[in-house]
Amino acid sequence: MTNPLSDPLQQGYVDYFYDQAGSSPGTLTIDEDASPTRIVVIDYNPHQARRIIVEQPEESADYLTTETVSWIDVQGLGDEDILRRLGQTFDLHPLVLEDVVNVPQRQKVEDFDDQLLIIARMVLPHPEGVGFVSEQVSFILHQQALLTIQEEPFHDSFGPVRKRIRLQKGLMRKMGADFLTYALLDAIIDGFFPVLELYGERLETLEDEILDNPTRETLNQVHSLKRELMNLRRLSWSQRDALSALLREDSPLISQEVKVYLRDCYDHSIQILDMVETYRDFAASLMDVYLSSVSNKMNEVMKVLTVISTIFIPLTFISGLYGMNFNPQVSPFNMPELSWYWGYPAVIATMLLISGSLSYLFWRRGWFSKVSP
Amino acid sequence: MTNPLSDPLQQGYVDYFYDQAGSSPGTLTIDEDASPTRIVVIDYNPHQARRIIVEQPEESADYLTTETVSWIDVQGLGDEDILRRLGQTFDLHPLVLEDVVNVPQRQKVEDFDDQLLIIARMVLPHPEGVGFVSEQVSFILHQQALLTIQEEPFHDSFGPVRKRIRLQKGLMRKMGADFLTYALLDAIIDGFFPVLELYGERLETLEDEILDNPTRETLNQVHSLKRELMNLRRLSWSQRDALSALLREDSPLISQEVKVYLRDCYDHSIQILDMVETYRDFAASLMDVYLSSVSNKMNEVMKVLTVISTIFIPLTFISGLYGMNFNPQVSPFNMPELSWYWGYPAVIATMLLISGSLSYLFWRRGWFSKVSP
Amino acid sequence: MTNPLSDPLQQGYVDYFYDQAGSSPGTLTIDEDASPTRIVVIDYNPHQARRIIVEQPEESADYLTTETVSWIDVQGLGDEDILRRLGQTFDLHPLVLEDVVNVPQRQKVEDFDDQLLIIARMVLPHPEGVGFVSEQVSFILHQQALLTIQEEPFHDSFGPVRKRIRLQKGLMRKMGADFLTYALLDAIIDGFFPVLELYGERLETLEDEILDNPTRETLNQVHSLKRELMNLRRLSWSQRDALSALLREDSPLISQEVKVYLRDCYDHSIQILDMVETYRDFAASLMDVYLSSVSNKMNEVMKVLTVISTIFIPLTFISGLYGMNFNPQVSPFNMPELSWYWGYPAVIATMLLISGSLSYLFWRRGWFSKVSP
Amino acid sequence: MTNPLSDPLQQGYVDYFYDQAGSSPGTLTIDEDASPTRIVVIDYNPHQARRIIVEQPEESADYLTTETVSWIDVQGLGDEDILRRLGQTFDLHPLVLEDVVNVPQRQKVEDFDDQLLIIARMVLPHPEGVGFVSEQVSFILHQQALLTIQEEPFHDSFGPVRKRIRLQKGLMRKMGADFLTYALLDAIIDGFFPVLELYGERLETLEDEILDNPTRETLNQVHSLKRELMNLRRLSWSQRDALSALLREDSPLISQEVKVYLRDCYDHSIQILDMVETYRDFAASLMDVYLSSVSNKMNEVMKVLTVISTIFIPLTFISGLYGMNFNPQVSPFNMPELSWYWGYPAVIATMLLISGSLSYLFWRRGWFSKVSP
Amino acid sequence: MTNPLSDPLQQGYVDYFYDQAGSSPGTLTIDEDASPTRIVVIDYNPHQARRIIVEQPEESADYLTTETVSWIDVQGLGDEDILRRLGQTFDLHPLVLEDVVNVPQRQKVEDFDDQLLIIARMVLPHPEGVGFVSEQVSFILHQQALLTIQEEPFHDSFGPVRKRIRLQKGLMRKMGADFLTYALLDAIIDGFFPVLELYGERLETLEDEILDNPTRETLNQVHSLKRELMNLRRLSWSQRDALSALLREDSPLISQEVKVYLRDCYDHSIQILDMVETYRDFAASLMDVYLSSVSNKMNEVMKVLTVISTIFIPLTFISGLYGMNFNPQVSPFNMPELSWYWGYPAVIATMLLISGSLSYLFWRRGWFSKVSP
Repeated sequence: MTNPLSDPLQQGYVDYFYDQAGSSPGTLTIDEDASPTRIVVIDYNPHQARRIIVEQPEESADYLTTETVSWIDVQGLGDEDILRRLGQTFDLHPLVLEDVVNVPQRQKVEDFDDQLLIIARMVLPHPEGVGFVSEQVSFILHQQALLTIQEEPFHDSFGPVRKRIRLQKGLMRKMGADFLTYALLDAIIDGFFPVLELYGERLETLEDEILDNPTRETLNQVHSLKRELMNLRRLSWSQRDALSALLREDSPLISQEVKVYLRDCYDHSIQILDMVETYRDFAASLMDVYLSSVSNKMNEVMKVLTVISTIFIPLTFISGLYGMNFNPQVSPFNMPELSWYWGYPAVIATMLLISGSLSYLFWRRGWFSKVSP
Repeated sequence: MTNPLSDPLQQGYVDYFYDQAGSSPGTLTIDEDASPTRIVVIDYNPHQARRIIVEQPEESADYLTTETVSWIDVQGLGDEDILRRLGQTFDLHPLVLEDVVNVPQRQKVEDFDDQLLIIARMVLPHPEGVGFVSEQVSFILHQQALLTIQEEPFHDSFGPVRKRIRLQKGLMRKMGADFLTYALLDAIIDGFFPVLELYGERLETLEDEILDNPTRETLNQVHSLKRELMNLRRLSWSQRDALSALLREDSPLISQEVKVYLRDCYDHSIQILDMVETYRDFAASLMDVYLSSVSNKMNEVMKVLTVISTIFIPLTFISGLYGMNFNPQVSPFNMPELSWYWGYPAVIATMLLISGSLSYLFWRRGWFSKVSP
Repeated sequence: MTNPLSDPLQQGYVDYFYDQAGSSPGTLTIDEDASPTRIVVIDYNPHQARRIIVEQPEESADYLTTETVSWIDVQGLGDEDILRRLGQTFDLHPLVLEDVVNVPQRQKVEDFDDQLLIIARMVLPHPEGVGFVSEQVSFILHQQALLTIQEEPFHDSFGPVRKRIRLQKGLMRKMGADFLTYALLDAIIDGFFPVLELYGERLETLEDEILDNPTRETLNQVHSLKRELMNLRRLSWSQRDALSALLREDSPLISQEVKVYLRDCYDHSIQILDMVETYRDFAASLMDVYLSSVSNKMNEVMKVLTVISTIFIPLTFISGLYGMNFNPQVSPFNMPELSWYWGYPAVIATMLLISGSLSYLFWRRGWFSKVSP
Repeated sequence: MTNPLSDPLQQGYVDYFYDQAGSSPGTLTIDEDASPTRIVVIDYNPHQARRIIVEQPEESADYLTTETVSWIDVQGLGDEDILRRLGQTFDLHPLVLEDVVNVPQRQKVEDFDDQLLIIARMVLPHPEGVGFVSEQVSFILHQQALLTIQEEPFHDSFGPVRKRIRLQKGLMRKMGADFLTYALLDAIIDGFFPVLELYGERLETLEDEILDNPTRETLNQVHSLKRELMNLRRLSWSQRDALSALLREDSPLISQEVKVYLRDCYDHSIQILDMVETYRDFAASLMDVYLSSVSNKMNEVMKVLTVISTIFIPLTFISGLYGMNFNPQVSPFNMPELSWYWGYPAVIATMLLISGSLSYLFWRRGWFSKVSP
Repeated sequence: MTNPLSDPLQQGYVDYFYDQAGSSPGTLTIDEDASPTRIVVIDYNPHQARRIIVEQPEESADYLTTETVSWIDVQGLGDEDILRRLGQTFDLHPLVLEDVVNVPQRQKVEDFDDQLLIIARMVLPHPEGVGFVSEQVSFILHQQALLTIQEEPFHDSFGPVRKRIRLQKGLMRKMGADFLTYALLDAIIDGFFPVLELYGERLETLEDEILDNPTRETLNQVHSLKRELMNLRRLSWSQRDALSALLREDSPLISQEVKVYLRDCYDHSIQILDMVETYRDFAASLMDVYLSSVSNKMNEVMKVLTVISTIFIPLTFISGLYGMNFNPQVSPFNMPELSWYWGYPAVIATMLLISGSLSYLFWRRGWFSKVSP
């Protein structure tokens, strides 16, 4: 499993995680490049909020039963031992632990009565500016606690949520763990939009290029864009599917009040899908326009060749004609023109007439109109 | 968020509103170019109708509880303070206020027991003549009052509805706020048709151009048309989805009587979708025809080149042949033709024969038929 | 609203009727070209059948309550006054009257408890032979009476039904108004088949043309065909939707016995859809073949040019070579060939060898095989 | 209605049967080319089996009420009188008789309480080897008897079923008329596979041809193949729909035990659909490859022309240069090269240099690699 | 039925098994190339595990009723006698035996109350490195025993499962036959991923080739790839359908606990489908890029031809002009240039000027930019 952040070209091809065929369910596969695991707990109630770095996974168990809402945020999938102990501490189903650790998985929602598993995917613009990177975030929702497991510790879109907890902004501190889940999911969904905006800009740039002066490089770029949009589309569809399943899910862990918020989140996921689909259509249309442009260009090249050839070929023939060495002394029929007084001027005049007529014909047919650059 | 009216080129790319990732639900984002907010109340019962400009949002609260039907029309999204106070006055859910203010949103229907939120999108032909502009209109339906929030105060399609209220025309004044909602939604839906008619005309013009004399400019226009239709299609689909949800919604705020009218409205939204889809197919077919035309044209250019080249190349060769300087005095085999009595006429005759035969061959193959302009 | 019969070119573009945005429901829009309105009543029971021309719409009210089955056939939409009075006489919902008069509307079925509205569309081969014309027929079914409103009085597909009533043929006279509705709908559905047959024939002709000798005109015809099929497809889909809704409808106005017949009608509407979809696929495939043919033709043109050019260009070069004026007296290296005894025959032989070899090469590559017309 | 067996070209275009618009339900349309009608009864119980040729349709009524299972097989649709009397004998609904006689109809299932109508379509490889022919087979299932009506008497796929009855092979003789229906339907479904196998072989042949040496004939063949597959696909879809309806049907005429067998039959119909869809994708992909091949070929033709032209054009120019007749005696600048001692060899050397360099350039660019046949 | 392993080219075309039309249900068709049949029983409980090679099918019956879990693994379909006796021993429905033996069948699930039939398909990378081979595996689940029938004995993906049973790893030995079924199905599903990874790599290689230097061979490879992906897609769809049916199935043979595991398996089958669909889109996009590349290349060839021809044709004409043999002594108008002092230099200068101007024009138009290799 390569780190998608370090290898942007990898984006183009799907790389779902897969088990060794026939391996036992619950087998954890630790990527050797994976970041070391870190556990950060944020514990809050309407009156206060604390942030604790937890060293041993077992310590986090305390937060499960408190009255306060606890967000246990595990970052990095590099430490199998900690992850296993975490699984035991939180009493996770072996399959849950597998889905959480063996990234990437398809987004989904699974209900285990007293726990709700949500696999989501955070999308971020690629740090080097082209395309996007994505990172799996798994949510395991308990009654009063939320366990999240992130693939990477380096960056996430959750900063503003943390700030809202710290600053007691909005409803955040007054609501339960389900609202926290919503807030984080919403941050993930909203994170798709800047990525889409970048694609919108790239499409616009490419469109200008294609209409103005398409080159082979343009083609390659449209192709990459299409490839990336295909992947983004896949992500968006499964995102939407997972959110739809979450709304249909009748888990007691999610209150009716929060469902209203989740519906809003779901609406945004459909917006994203709408946009991705529309972008894909745009990209396909650009490809068509590119093809037409190439044909158009070839057409113009051909016109130049045809105009020049067609005008000069008869002239060259005529000049060749009078370059023949027939002996005029043998016969009065042997090229007497060569000895006429007005011979040369007459030939030149004929040539001008021919080239003029042909030029006029081509001009009438509009072949000159597009010949200018 | 740019004003879609001031930037027609912006139309081509989707620009849904999106929150800063992780921001609190209910955050209002006021676009600095947004028009100042104005509140116009139209209050009527079967016997009379009044139009009041309300300065402070709190004043409009009075109209919620009266026996009369009240239409509180908020125009322009520029004043955060007024919008916030409006939200408090009408007891709006924070998400509702967010959806209403942070435009554009996808069309949708949401039921909040004593309120019904409908997000719609008004479509108008672009004032400069090409394409369309669109504007979000949000409906919040109460028992006896309708709150509408329009993105722009400058123009809407609601003039005839206002007139019908003023003139006591039709059922308008006899029915409740749900009928008013229908009347306005119907005006929005009917507003799609003139836009579509413009597209129909553009398609027809482009078709004529493509069949007659396609240029590169034509290609660009077909491409823009396709792009705009893709956007219009997206709007139409979500429109239809929202209306379908409204029909399925079992809200007590909408009477059975009005549902019959809404079903008619829904039928029209399907008509619109039908037309947009058919137009999209037409546009795709035009692209194909364009491509074929370009190939056809290249074919004709090639034919001209081939006919001219093929006829003259052998002639030029022959003339070149007799332009060689072999010394006839050295050998009887060295171009004795040059000294024949009928040498030159014979060569000319041969040339005429060759060019005649080739022309006949090309004519038989039909290569001249399409060479004329 | 142009009369679709008088303007065949209009067919290509969708022209649904649309209200002035914001107009009151029930507004009737009378097209000034519309035909004058005529009312024909056919009243029958198992024992007898009468045909009455009714002058005043109010007179037709009598037929609503009789024991006999009455078919009140209104032809032509030119007379607003008559249509309005008809609406009052039959107690039509304002929306029904609007849908009936403001043509064209999408096909649909609407249940008003004691009335059932069916909007259908009759399709006829175009009188001038290419394409089709269509005309809205609205059915308003009462317990013992059927009110139909046709857009045009000039022609319809109902002749055989009238004959069956007159001649007491089949079940016609023994059954109620619901069977009459079925019989008329069935006539409308069956009217699609001759239109489709014409398209089948056009497809076959175009296919022959494309495989034999495609011209630009062929392309235009394929394009028109595709455009017309797109429209026909839209009609067929909404036809099917309307019939499916009719079958699901639980109206007491339609007996179980007649439902069996309607199911047959529905099956035929699916057959029509099948055929239209298959024709559309055929037309799309023809477009592909056309494009390939154009490429093929260009290929052949190119081959002719290449064969001729490639054979003669080296020969011309050689002849040019020996046309150079180097002075043989200055140096023994200056073109001594020109003074050789076998010089000229050797050059001719070389030329024959070159052209022979090249011809052989081209023949081996199969470039001559397709050069023949 | 043409006999699809006698007119293989007819296959390409859909020819559903259609009534004269407005004709009475139950109108039988006898095609004058239709084969004479023949009735064969096979009557069996676990102990014995008889085969009787029945002359008068009324005689077959006896078999309806016997304890034995009776298969009344009507072959050929040429005799209206017999068919009508058959309808009366078996108490068929007029629409049933119409569907059975007026072929072709879409495959379907219709439940008439004490009778079950199944319209199926038998598919056979075309006797002349290319494509397929199809024939309608209608099943009318009674409690202890099965009435089948075949379009053609000449051949069917039922031979093995008859043999199984005769030889008391398998379950055949122990089960009821519903099992017989299954056995015949299964024979029909299994009859699709040899047809598909032929298409698989044709696809393979065409693929080889396209990759090796595509000609215009290849294109025509791919096109026909696509057209035939479109028709086959239509048949397969409606087959699947009919079988799915049969499985959902809750008729007492079909026992649970036989439903297991029918489910197997349904699975096979989905297999067929899978294969047809995959073949269609293959054919579409072949079309793409064909187009690319044509472009590739043109590319190679162009390369030959360009290489030859580009190498010889400069040489011809040079030889033309030294063919000019400037008078060297007038001026020392007038083509003194012509009188140099090494003039001619220098020019030849220059020419060799130019053509060598250009050839090298073209070789480096890989233009020679594909020029070989 | 050819052995798909021995004939890799066969992969491209669907080869479902089909009965001789009309054959009795339950007819077994033994392929003469099929491997001999071998029966291996693995019998285990939490405390121990045994592996027994069974000679006579009847012996395996003992394992049906033991308390232990028994996995009866039948490998190879070559021995009709053994297979028939197996069917009797396990009391298999004739259709089950037919589906199991007459490979290949579509994947499916069928519930026979006390038995559950699952037809699955194992996919393996092709041993020779390109493409994949597949093999049918049928599961017949009893209360405490699982009968599996594999097409081939040579290799399967079940090694790790056997090892887990032997080593008492994970839950394996503690759970029932349903968990064993899950474990084997999971091994089959996980076996798709390495195959997909190979396709991902091939796509990447082809993409590089197409963007760098597409040849005709590249086209053929993209085509094969598409064809194989079409087949893989068909397999994946029916896999997903079968697993979805398995989850919906309410069989008492599968415990709720195992259903959780099967849901995970189902999720993976959707991942596979996602990937196959995305790969198919990639392959289609590659085809487009290929076509564009071919056009681009032709464009460049044309540019070379046009640049060279257009520059030299006028020069050649001029040189031809002064090669005419007009007699300067007859008239002062007859080519006096030939005798000018600066004649030749002037002509050379003109030629340089013309070629310079044309080169500049072409350079400005960017025709040189892409001419370099």
